[in-house]
Amino acid sequence: MTPREIAALAREIAAACDAGAPDPSCGCAYPAAAAPPGRRVELAAAIDQTLLRPDAAEAEIRRFLAAARPAGFRAVCVQPSWIPAAARALRGTSTRVASVVGFPHGATVTPVKCLEAETAIRLGATEIDMAANIGAVMSDDLDAAFVDIKAVAAVTARYGAVLKVILEMPSLDRRRKIQACVVSKLAGADFVTTATGFEGAAADARDVATMQRVVGGVLGVKAAGGINTYAQLQSMLRAGATRIGTDRGHQILAESAAA
Amino acid sequence: MTPREIAALAREIAAACDAGAPDPSCGCAYPAAAAPPGRRVELAAAIDQTLLRPDAAEAEIRRFLAAARPAGFRAVCVQPSWIPAAARALRGTSTRVASVVGFPHGATVTPVKCLEAETAIRLGATEIDMAANIGAVMSDDLDAAFVDIKAVAAVTARYGAVLKVILEMPSLDRRRKIQACVVSKLAGADFVTTATGFEGAAADARDVATMQRVVGGVLGVKAAGGINTYAQLQSMLRAGATRIGTDRGHQILAESAAA
Repeated sequence: MTPREIAALAREIAAACDAGAPDPSCGCAYPAAAAPPGRRVELAAAIDQTLLRPDAAEAEIRRFLAAARPAGFRAVCVQPSWIPAAARALRGTSTRVASVVGFPHGATVTPVKCLEAETAIRLGATEIDMAANIGAVMSDDLDAAFVDIKAVAAVTARYGAVLKVILEMPSLDRRRKIQACVVSKLAGADFVTTATGFEGAAADARDVATMQRVVGGVLGVKAAGGINTYAQLQSMLRAGATRIGTDRGHQILAESAAA
Repeated sequence: MTPREIAALAREIAAACDAGAPDPSCGCAYPAAAAPPGRRVELAAAIDQTLLRPDAAEAEIRRFLAAARPAGFRAVCVQPSWIPAAARALRGTSTRVASVVGFPHGATVTPVKCLEAETAIRLGATEIDMAANIGAVMSDDLDAAFVDIKAVAAVTARYGAVLKVILEMPSLDRRRKIQACVVSKLAGADFVTTATGFEGAAADARDVATMQRVVGGVLGVKAAGGINTYAQLQSMLRAGATRIGTDRGHQILAESAAA
């Protein structure tokens, strides 16, 4: 199939999902998410502990990484400049290094995103959080959105890295939310993510539920943006999130231990 | 000189500037900016008419470009994805196509910024608005900030393109503001720019005056972020700005004609 044909298929599947008619091929028929993890170790393994503020200085990054080392998070997510420091700090732990591509606007061109992904992986990242081309989705140019993700997915697949595609759900209407999820799945993403966390809107459990309904079971669903408390995290997990991006991982784990 | 030696020099010059002792080599002794342009055509030629919202769709981009075509702006500034459309829309006019690199966080690695700049130029941009590595400046790692700009400057120089370095001045203290300006100059920038406009803080005339004092006469000074009115634009020009980034170019020109 050509990218154009696949994009046409994506539109069809999205239309079917939107009409409430489950289609096995779009993931709607997959079982809902399992019960949220209860124990602290499981909870930590669902968290991407994140520090992406561009003005964070080296001392703050080092404190962040040292604190993350014993916590058992699934990943730490840092800006590309800090990947080598993160890889060194987390060596010998089960915590992965994640970094961002085309972040946060998603509006750079595809070859640049590919080099950014490859460079991140070579520097030590094993998870890539890529901002999708939301301008293309808003322009109903699903071909362009698909090709962009597919190209980065080819890079992550080559290295066995995980690809999470950030969709900036608060910017999208319902039809485009579903289309963006389907396109991400067809293009080879491992996860879809609600938002960059830099556009102001907090993660919305309804978006998580939509993503889980459309691609859950096949893809992971990451909720990110404004998740500051254990209660907020729990509501995202209940809605179907399988990964949580937050800069408050330690506080949330402490709250969960006290609960 | 090695990058490390140049960075040490930058620190010295910055310290001298900061102490209020003008040093010809840092640009302090250059004359203050000329009087602001008065006529509408000159005013338009000082404006980068800008649309960088990542969720802008193709129809909005096309309207933006069509409206910019007859206005005589110095440049239009768009996301990399839209450079080909901008180059087509502005063909035959004096308005240049500008685009962004490492934007807005400036935290991607240098080889990626270089490819991004080269790709933008090959697609039709002749001006590059690059986000500096502010994390490096905040970490007092001027070597890293210098090498990052220098590498992109080598790309823009090879193609005869203009390089504007965005410094996110509101995030920096006074010492680092000056250091960042000096490093940009030594690394081969053509302009320094106050901010990305995506971090919330509006352009500040005091920052513009600092930049003009430290590198003016040698480098251009671009004010960007929250410049919405003719009065705001005038205050930036009076402080020494030689270029204005705004998404309200048309309204400002209309105001200036009525004034």
